[in-house]
Amino acid sequence: MSKERLYLFDTTLRDGVQTIGVDFSLEDKLLIAETLDALGVDYIEGGYPGANPVDTALFENKRLYKNAKFTAFGMTKRAGRSVSNDPGFQDLLNAECDAICLVAKTWDYHVRVALGISNEENLDAISQSIRAIGETDREPLLDCEHFFDGYKADKEYALACAKAAYDEGARWVVLCDTNGGTLPTEIEDIVSDVAKVVPGDHLGIHTHNDTENAVANTLAGIRAGARQVQGTLNGLGERCGNANLTSIIPTLMLKPELADRFEIGVTPAQLRNLTHASRVLDEILNRAPDRHAPYVGESAFATKAGIHASAILKDPATYEHIDPELVGNQRRVLVSNQGGKSNILGELERLGIKASKDDPRLDTLLAEVKSREATGYAYEGADASFELLARRTLGNVPRFFEVDSFRVMVERRHNAVGELVTISEATVKVHVNGESMLSVGEGNGPINALDTALRKDLGKYQAFIEDLELVDYKVRILTGGSDAVTRVLVESRDRAGARWFTVGVSPNIVDASFEALLDSINYKLIRDGAPAP
Amino acid sequence: MSKERLYLFDTTLRDGVQTIGVDFSLEDKLLIAETLDALGVDYIEGGYPGANPVDTALFENKRLYKNAKFTAFGMTKRAGRSVSNDPGFQDLLNAECDAICLVAKTWDYHVRVALGISNEENLDAISQSIRAIGETDREPLLDCEHFFDGYKADKEYALACAKAAYDEGARWVVLCDTNGGTLPTEIEDIVSDVAKVVPGDHLGIHTHNDTENAVANTLAGIRAGARQVQGTLNGLGERCGNANLTSIIPTLMLKPELADRFEIGVTPAQLRNLTHASRVLDEILNRAPDRHAPYVGESAFATKAGIHASAILKDPATYEHIDPELVGNQRRVLVSNQGGKSNILGELERLGIKASKDDPRLDTLLAEVKSREATGYAYEGADASFELLARRTLGNVPRFFEVDSFRVMVERRHNAVGELVTISEATVKVHVNGESMLSVGEGNGPINALDTALRKDLGKYQAFIEDLELVDYKVRILTGGSDAVTRVLVESRDRAGARWFTVGVSPNIVDASFEALLDSINYKLIRDGAPAP
Repeated sequence: MSKERLYLFDTTLRDGVQTIGVDFSLEDKLLIAETLDALGVDYIEGGYPGANPVDTALFENKRLYKNAKFTAFGMTKRAGRSVSNDPGFQDLLNAECDAICLVAKTWDYHVRVALGISNEENLDAISQSIRAIGETDREPLLDCEHFFDGYKADKEYALACAKAAYDEGARWVVLCDTNGGTLPTEIEDIVSDVAKVVPGDHLGIHTHNDTENAVANTLAGIRAGARQVQGTLNGLGERCGNANLTSIIPTLMLKPELADRFEIGVTPAQLRNLTHASRVLDEILNRAPDRHAPYVGESAFATKAGIHASAILKDPATYEHIDPELVGNQRRVLVSNQGGKSNILGELERLGIKASKDDPRLDTLLAEVKSREATGYAYEGADASFELLARRTLGNVPRFFEVDSFRVMVERRHNAVGELVTISEATVKVHVNGESMLSVGEGNGPINALDTALRKDLGKYQAFIEDLELVDYKVRILTGGSDAVTRVLVESRDRAGARWFTVGVSPNIVDASFEALLDSINYKLIRDGAPAP
Repeated sequence: MSKERLYLFDTTLRDGVQTIGVDFSLEDKLLIAETLDALGVDYIEGGYPGANPVDTALFENKRLYKNAKFTAFGMTKRAGRSVSNDPGFQDLLNAECDAICLVAKTWDYHVRVALGISNEENLDAISQSIRAIGETDREPLLDCEHFFDGYKADKEYALACAKAAYDEGARWVVLCDTNGGTLPTEIEDIVSDVAKVVPGDHLGIHTHNDTENAVANTLAGIRAGARQVQGTLNGLGERCGNANLTSIIPTLMLKPELADRFEIGVTPAQLRNLTHASRVLDEILNRAPDRHAPYVGESAFATKAGIHASAILKDPATYEHIDPELVGNQRRVLVSNQGGKSNILGELERLGIKASKDDPRLDTLLAEVKSREATGYAYEGADASFELLARRTLGNVPRFFEVDSFRVMVERRHNAVGELVTISEATVKVHVNGESMLSVGEGNGPINALDTALRKDLGKYQAFIEDLELVDYKVRILTGGSDAVTRVLVESRDRAGARWFTVGVSPNIVDASFEALLDSINYKLIRDGAPAP
């Protein structure tokens, strides 16, 4: 029997930005869009072109995506203006995109109070706006804001709004539980009723997590007939978040009652990237991943209880609802770590480093990685540091140079004309090939000054690092209070277009940064085949 | 019409302890039990007396609780021994408690593989153990481990286990989704079927969050007839956590489709303590509360978008699914670059700062906030810095002290015995009341050294900041490359239990940190009513 297709609509870049503390740069948005496309979602809602400089630039720089339709968000045309006479709407129509998702009020109370227009004017705005999009080559979608509250207040009107969009050719009419307070039974009842007016294969469901039911509400919507699902990576979103696609995707693919009936655009191979995709977002947000997140959390398949642990080692199915590898996650049984060695081997293979399964140095490397990760290192995001560590353990890496000492000073004082200024200055003493060089550098901060001094003169190696450039620098404090450890991640690149990531960890941010900078330089020297001293 | 009673069974102190990284002391457990009792739950499962020293001591020190039955957890008697001949079971029977909850396997596969006994021996252990408890003055309960998987593998046997307990007088037969992988529809179907054998007013539902459906699964259990609900505060628990009572309680009380039919032991006045109870647990766990937690999270009623914000100030019901005060939480209309004047007014009201809508200084404040946010400040996460800025713009804040200059030095060098060490040292020159003080401090990094020096001597203000403690320190690099700006967020607290957040922004991490530290000190001085110089 052929399965019914369900469509995934991701709004991490639009509704996710409503989250307190979330603010994506253009580069962030491009990287997230790429990650979502690789994951296999059907729609990526990029943002609101024209509303702010980042979103405008995002659509001006629209990339080609393999799987996803890149979608612009905006409002229906203003009442009292024609479509062609509304400059905001025209900007939206001209945005580079594959689909346009309009938001419209469908709760009569909001139409009256917030928009101050009549129900008919609002209906008219929906119809004309959807029609105008349909006349371009873009796919039209309508987000029905406050649909469930609207339905309860004035059922006829809410349905009329949905039907107006459908009648004018909206590919999807999306029912939004904007306040997030509706419970699964009510969602199911109302969506079932709407499906009598708009067929399910044109209905979408958009829920929020204010009662901790966003995932269940999405599943209720599907049961009632909706065939498009809106959500975000890691459940990012205003207040308590949007429906979490990171939980919904594996549930749809791995739970027989759903997987037997439905199919989505994500392949099993793409599903294995789910944990990675989730971590990429947290990395961009510079926040610690939620250890307890369903499917992708570090503890999602971790067992503490002794009896559970030994049962799991006997037969994982006894205490695991799915095989963690299907979502790219790992089993963690606190008594033993069978997976470790095979992980490392896979990682070495990926980096092109040859190692035999029986090489005892592999155990040394595994132990070293584990002990470093226990103190705060994170090699998942620092390939180049991992490669250096592996090459040093499994073979030979020349000691190109030695750092004898450094000193960094930051001083705030009044300058000659009485202004308060801050000066950062660093000196570094390096030994290269028996020669000793003392360099000094200034910077806009202590790390920048240290980096400047360190890269000023590496003697015979200087030519190799001339095109090394620092692209990004991230700091995370790992534990609060006085025991805090600082982890620094540095992203570097060179003129040839290579990019690499290194990591440093220390209670002292200057030490941690210095370690990551040293790794970056050493990696570059190996990469470019610098000769041993 | 009289409402049906639902019973709340909290297992924070028992199943919650399975969480990775969670380890309660006796004092912790006593405080949590007190908090739960004050909240109005019906059962508090304290732990497994005899299994470890803390749990044993907890039952030896049993307190009197106003609302809750204090419950011991343990296993059914061992097969091959009589009840009176099993010392472990006898210890349990003798524990000081009001109820005893036994766990038993109800999945034939586990009975065979994990216990290595026959199905009949297991049934017999259930019957005899429940009967033995019933013969004391304790209430007997049975947790049916892996019930849903067991039901799917061998329905007759799983039902026989549940019925055996009920027939022997178990007050509650609790159906546990131990692996956490069952979806709401399946829960509802299976619980409905069990309710034909064990009446719903003797059925409990115990779910886990592995598919992010623990709350929905609990509601599905209730729909199918179960009248006891098991869960934990803040959804604490193994892997992805248990069903979150912090979300379930307000949903049961505030959502008409449930509140009209059911009543629980929590009064509206107790419900107003929900946010407090949730924070108490996080405090004991020494972790930052989840800002996005439904109902109780700091962001659960927070709005960032400008249009939403002005709508909320007009009529909160437009974007809020419940009144936040009902659960002891607060509305937050955020100051952020998406917001406008109405956001600021709402925020000032919350902070208790009087301002008239027409005060022109409000425009100054708004412009200042916007221009600072454009350079990287984020006031949504830094209440105390916002309050300082607002009070400085709208009124008067004394200049308690002035920092004349500071110098921070980080040096890595070889020490007397040839080891490479890093030293961080800072000097700060402060003017207080015409006096000039020069202080020096050391630290494990430059910021720590600077903080130590700054707080060493503030003259007449020193007494006010003696109990100021730095709880957390976060760093975010806002733009990549050489134009990078550093944003530092500092969380502080004092002995009175107050917590506040401050922010600093600069290209120089030392400057940014210094600014946030200064804000924290000034906030503390204002808060505690320090006199002007």
